[in-house]
Amino acid sequence: MPHCVFCKIAAGEVPASVVFDDGQALAFLDHRPLFPGHCLLIPKIHVETLAEASPEMLAHLSGKARLLSMAVEEALGAQGSFVALNNRVSQSVPHLHIHVVPRTKGDGLKGFFWPRQKYSNIEHVENIRSQLENKFRELSQSANT
Amino acid sequence: MPHCVFCKIAAGEVPASVVFDDGQALAFLDHRPLFPGHCLLIPKIHVETLAEASPEMLAHLSGKARLLSMAVEEALGAQGSFVALNNRVSQSVPHLHIHVVPRTKGDGLKGFFWPRQKYSNIEHVENIRSQLENKFRELSQSANT
Repeated sequence: MPHCVFCKIAAGEVPASVVFDDGQALAFLDHRPLFPGHCLLIPKIHVETLAEASPEMLAHLSGKARLLSMAVEEALGAQGSFVALNNRVSQSVPHLHIHVVPRTKGDGLKGFFWPRQKYSNIEHVENIRSQLENKFRELSQSANT
Repeated sequence: MPHCVFCKIAAGEVPASVVFDDGQALAFLDHRPLFPGHCLLIPKIHVETLAEASPEMLAHLSGKARLLSMAVEEALGAQGSFVALNNRVSQSVPHLHIHVVPRTKGDGLKGFFWPRQKYSNIEHVENIRSQLENKFRELSQSANT
């Protein structure tokens, strides 16, 4: 993509602090980290969201996300890690990227997972569940045909 | 795992609002959602964190996370989705689980990704980068041997 900054980083046309590059995927330091060591993992091929990623791309990226989560924990002495991606909403660059962030207890980063909501009643839960079940089945079937 | 609630859900011993179950992986509604339709995707085999997941498990889970992100968007009319997992820190149940959450612009859920930090100087960036590069290489080499 001509105007995609992550494509430019992948092509070496825009500088970045690269952690690894295996030809298919690339990880580099986010320049505005949640915590130092916060990495972004991207496929070199331009896709915007998870929906556009191929099974081969996902298998590759998930394996690299695993190693990167271990690397940020072990290299930086973190107690855990956070691995996340945003599709469209809160996605600042429209090129699929996986955040891999070192975490430490008491680091203050509990904000995202709170506050939680409650379903108003069991019918509401079942309504949502059945909509998702049907859509998931439909998508699975079209993926297999 | 005898006392793991997600293993019990996977075995059908604890009730849950199941969205899909293909024998290897299972998705169900989080009972305290960030937003209605917030799903948890788990492998049926008990592993605690991403580090313990096999390449086959990751390939399977990432494909299902993709379909689930599409399902929550399409079934619930969301504008996007958030896909995330916590390793140890902020991980309430020690059985690997991937959050798949429908997102809408202005839904108020920007808290996690702010505030960002800045690296104090270029030496700090390079120090972190080289530590991660070395650890990632070391982990990749032991994964291949």
